[in-house]
Amino acid sequence: MRLASSALSLAILLSGSVSAAEETLHISAPRLERLLLGLSAFGKNPEGGVSRLAFSEEDRAARAWVLEKMKRAGLEVWVDPAANIHARRAGSDPSLPVILFGSHIDSVPQGGNFDGGVGSMAALEVMLSLRDRQAITRHPLEMVIWSDEEGVHYGKPYLGSRAATRGLDSGDLELEDEQGVSIAEWLRRYGLDSEQIGTARMDPGTIAAYLELHIEQGAVLERRGIQIGVVEGIVGIDEFRVVVEGFANHAGTTPMEVRRDALMAAARLILAAREEVMVGSGRQVGNVGWIQVVPGAPNVVPGLVRMNIELRDLRREVIDDMIGRIREAARAIADEEGVSISIERYASDEPALTDPRLQELIEKVAKGAGFSTLRMPSGAGHDAQSLGRVGIPIGMIFVPSKNGISHSPREWTDWEDCARGAEVLYLTLLELDRK
Amino acid sequence: MRLASSALSLAILLSGSVSAAEETLHISAPRLERLLLGLSAFGKNPEGGVSRLAFSEEDRAARAWVLEKMKRAGLEVWVDPAANIHARRAGSDPSLPVILFGSHIDSVPQGGNFDGGVGSMAALEVMLSLRDRQAITRHPLEMVIWSDEEGVHYGKPYLGSRAATRGLDSGDLELEDEQGVSIAEWLRRYGLDSEQIGTARMDPGTIAAYLELHIEQGAVLERRGIQIGVVEGIVGIDEFRVVVEGFANHAGTTPMEVRRDALMAAARLILAAREEVMVGSGRQVGNVGWIQVVPGAPNVVPGLVRMNIELRDLRREVIDDMIGRIREAARAIADEEGVSISIERYASDEPALTDPRLQELIEKVAKGAGFSTLRMPSGAGHDAQSLGRVGIPIGMIFVPSKNGISHSPREWTDWEDCARGAEVLYLTLLELDRK
Repeated sequence: MRLASSALSLAILLSGSVSAAEETLHISAPRLERLLLGLSAFGKNPEGGVSRLAFSEEDRAARAWVLEKMKRAGLEVWVDPAANIHARRAGSDPSLPVILFGSHIDSVPQGGNFDGGVGSMAALEVMLSLRDRQAITRHPLEMVIWSDEEGVHYGKPYLGSRAATRGLDSGDLELEDEQGVSIAEWLRRYGLDSEQIGTARMDPGTIAAYLELHIEQGAVLERRGIQIGVVEGIVGIDEFRVVVEGFANHAGTTPMEVRRDALMAAARLILAAREEVMVGSGRQVGNVGWIQVVPGAPNVVPGLVRMNIELRDLRREVIDDMIGRIREAARAIADEEGVSISIERYASDEPALTDPRLQELIEKVAKGAGFSTLRMPSGAGHDAQSLGRVGIPIGMIFVPSKNGISHSPREWTDWEDCARGAEVLYLTLLELDRK
Repeated sequence: MRLASSALSLAILLSGSVSAAEETLHISAPRLERLLLGLSAFGKNPEGGVSRLAFSEEDRAARAWVLEKMKRAGLEVWVDPAANIHARRAGSDPSLPVILFGSHIDSVPQGGNFDGGVGSMAALEVMLSLRDRQAITRHPLEMVIWSDEEGVHYGKPYLGSRAATRGLDSGDLELEDEQGVSIAEWLRRYGLDSEQIGTARMDPGTIAAYLELHIEQGAVLERRGIQIGVVEGIVGIDEFRVVVEGFANHAGTTPMEVRRDALMAAARLILAAREEVMVGSGRQVGNVGWIQVVPGAPNVVPGLVRMNIELRDLRREVIDDMIGRIREAARAIADEEGVSISIERYASDEPALTDPRLQELIEKVAKGAGFSTLRMPSGAGHDAQSLGRVGIPIGMIFVPSKNGISHSPREWTDWEDCARGAEVLYLTLLELDRK
């Protein structure tokens, strides 16, 4: 399948035997595929995916490879003190703000070859295609590879894009990994000076827009047979810590009707949470992904349950409504089960909406290229949200993920879909430049 | 409260100011209390309970103390190779089988002062009272302190009573604790020869009956204001391992309606299990005390849940019915949630019924002494079940547990209740001897 679809991409360009729309790609699908395969060599796992954590030898090697490619593409290249890689192509009017686009190349452990990689290599391919066509834009164009998007190494995502926008939280640079090595020390190993981190900040006024192509990481596009997702925004995420307190007791000597079983109450709350999330027709989601029973013995009635509820939606008020109704359900369950339930929000990411004008533009150029489109939220977080939150107009393009699988060696996006995404990025940039 | 109730026990004997029934106790309540407090010194915790695991220095010290008390009571004392302590008082007719009674003195970690202790010290008090009254029985009487009832140290309960009846399982003596010390080695430290373990076996034909006084470890007696529980049997226990397999997925990008969430299915099964256990009016119980979610991250839809179901009842067919109906519910849930559910029995203890004649006898003498009684199952396991399973008629007497709490420093049984239990044991033995 991999070879077959690769051959198909070539066929598009060489033989003209496929649809008219695909014949007219401006970017080079085979070169994009080669770039993606080249990147996949860094941190490769036996199962096929990559483990390329930010701030690792694998990441450092991949960065050196990308830097070299950028330089050979004739771009003006620099690395800021937050380890973000920038590569700029001048425009004809130096007074115009820059059009920024890019993604990330770090991965989760045992991750896939497409998350971040597609958007990063497509950005490079766009730069190469512009060079090949000797295109001249009015705006300067700048591609960026954000550092540490996944945030696995230190448990905090978006290091690079946060440093470039609102700035880091105090203490971020002093976070230590399991080996006791801080982010500051890793920056030093990358040849950077963490004391200069403040200079990584970009002036939002100098940026016309930020565009990011990414794999969907879900199965909405694939299930509906759609080629391009036009992202309406990146959902807000609220994380809640739930504690259910009942009374631990002997599972043999305590009659059923007098138990105050924390797990029974928790089970009811888990189901109630799903019910409240699924009220109405929106695309809000909720998850209980972690649970702990205390004392956790087969022969002891659970006295305590700790668990987690996560809620996501594009609209703050929808999240607030959901948790409100879940709290109400919890009160009723606590009463009926003779337990106490506390629900405490411990983390919150506000929704980041994409720019409506950019949504329209992406949709227009995608349709013009003959691709089917769907407006949709991004259920996952992305660096784009950092930029959106300081007022930079953001736009995101999604391409389908096979079976919706991501953060896995089984992550896959067909080469044709990667190429379609890169083409939409190319066309959107030029359209944006024309305005 | 402790002092007040202690004073009350003394008052019963000294002033005759309380009820006629309590005035006529044959055993000595104050001496029983002193014995219990004496035993509680071994392995005492700051919180008030004891940590006196079988095969520990605390256990060894307590055993030496008990042995000394038995010898001073004029009993014929020996320790068998399974570390069971025996103390015999001769009867007038050496051809009659022995009447056996006793309990255990080992505890769980952070356990209480009454579990096992009440039955053991009451057995000793009965022997002392018989001596004081120069009573002569027809049958030989033998008290026994079974070794390692709790089975915490090596994860397998009833070592002593199993060795004395059906024999140990092969490999039991080679079980090692966290320090790599085997049971055989601990027996050696106790001055015993594990190679002689076979000689710990008793011939069931030489035993007329086995009686055990124990705290209820539940709150049934207390809630109903009953003084003496007449145990109908020790419940059978089936342990099931449940595996729910769904599909792990991104909690942000996977729409609710396409999830195959293993935890949602597990929550429904937990509630269905309770419902099926509570069908009908029996005293069967069921518990889900342990659950594990994989991968167990707040932002990942649970792909796998492992959990445990434990079912207990006096009747095998009731346990079988319950699990049959739970399996049926699991099939429906699996279908509806798009997951697979497997339920596998991994351990089973058959119910051990007490002898109906002994039930009647205990009930009769208790009522005769003016105590209220209730026939009830034992939801917890006891050494008596080992004896019941080789055909020895067993009888058990329960006394109330404050708030039903056991295996905790908060375990408590009022001194008057301890005394009532010892009195019923005394009277039952004599009544049994008379027949």
